[in-house]
Amino acid sequence: MFEQEQTSSPLILGVLASGRGSNLQAIIDAIEEGRLEAKIALVLSNKADAFALVRAKNHYISTVFVDPKQYERREDYDDALLKTLQAHQVQVVVLAGYMRLLTEHLVKPFHNRMINIHPSLLPAFPGLHAQRQAIAYGVKLSGCTVHFVDEKMDNGPIIAQTTVPVLDGDTEEDLAGRILVEEHRLLPSVIQRIAEGKLRIDGRRVLHLEKTRFPLEINR
Amino acid sequence: MFEQEQTSSPLILGVLASGRGSNLQAIIDAIEEGRLEAKIALVLSNKADAFALVRAKNHYISTVFVDPKQYERREDYDDALLKTLQAHQVQVVVLAGYMRLLTEHLVKPFHNRMINIHPSLLPAFPGLHAQRQAIAYGVKLSGCTVHFVDEKMDNGPIIAQTTVPVLDGDTEEDLAGRILVEEHRLLPSVIQRIAEGKLRIDGRRVLHLEKTRFPLEINR
Repeated sequence: MFEQEQTSSPLILGVLASGRGSNLQAIIDAIEEGRLEAKIALVLSNKADAFALVRAKNHYISTVFVDPKQYERREDYDDALLKTLQAHQVQVVVLAGYMRLLTEHLVKPFHNRMINIHPSLLPAFPGLHAQRQAIAYGVKLSGCTVHFVDEKMDNGPIIAQTTVPVLDGDTEEDLAGRILVEEHRLLPSVIQRIAEGKLRIDGRRVLHLEKTRFPLEINR
Repeated sequence: MFEQEQTSSPLILGVLASGRGSNLQAIIDAIEEGRLEAKIALVLSNKADAFALVRAKNHYISTVFVDPKQYERREDYDDALLKTLQAHQVQVVVLAGYMRLLTEHLVKPFHNRMINIHPSLLPAFPGLHAQRQAIAYGVKLSGCTVHFVDEKMDNGPIIAQTTVPVLDGDTEEDLAGRILVEEHRLLPSVIQRIAEGKLRIDGRRVLHLEKTRFPLEINR
């Protein structure tokens, strides 16, 4: 008996993280559970003590700390990151709580191949403390956004968004926690769409070639 | 047998409209179907041929066209509107597609008693052509917002928001139609909450005193 098997090489990811790395963990989990056909080649951080690095090591993923103090110019720092990513054959870069402004030196080589997740419904509340901004403004809905990265902060073409309610008594932490649950669902599902080649960029609009709901149900 | 009956006088509304008045119709329908304990005292328009005026007349609601050409200054125009609204004992003013900037002369006397519905998830895409702005930006979610009116356009405290998806092939009209369905649900339900006295304004945040889902289920 002949059984046909479809084999495709997994998408090779580089993850940039500065903090606790819960979105990194969501990607790792999705890969280990077979929901995401990707491989994390390395996790890069600008913080030596980022818990994201610990998480990566726990799963035998290469980690690199690149010390910003060793580089005078931001561009030089990004050149170092670029070289490291390229040395690991990274195809797509995921910013998962990477708290540092990027320069063209890193953005351009990964044009349409670098994504970011932001804890608001962009274009509302870009920048730092998005959840605090949302609470202060008094919106009744917020959420998260995954978008391609361009030269401007939190500005590139939007791939997917998910909404959560803002409740009357919400603190910044309450809202952040509620959004984070959705981030952990949304980010791996978007990466899977990229791995499947199902996204097309048309100006500022990102088209999804097959109609499916986020989070994706993947039939294997 | 003694049967206790709870009677409360309906909230008296003044509706300002410039266009076809589909949100006005949603309010009329909600009142006639017993979902909204309010009465529309009059519909005011700055356009003589606004279809909203026809809808009002069809339901025996007073209509007033106030001609902007008769007033040199915007403030004088708003003074005329204010007098008309006050003459009709209007308690709450609803802007339902009213396409004219308001001055303090009308906003201040109706502070916390004037609401507007806007076809986006504010603070994203304020101003004209909100749906076109959303399509051009490439967001994946949009919706509508009901908010109290303050001196700045589309800026006051948000009472409620509802979301709709933006689909790949959407034209401005497609999105506008999808949002409009939600506007027609949201606006009457918000007015009912006001009628029930269930909203409290705390700075920019509007608190809902009883947890219910929009649209409201009203038990009678």
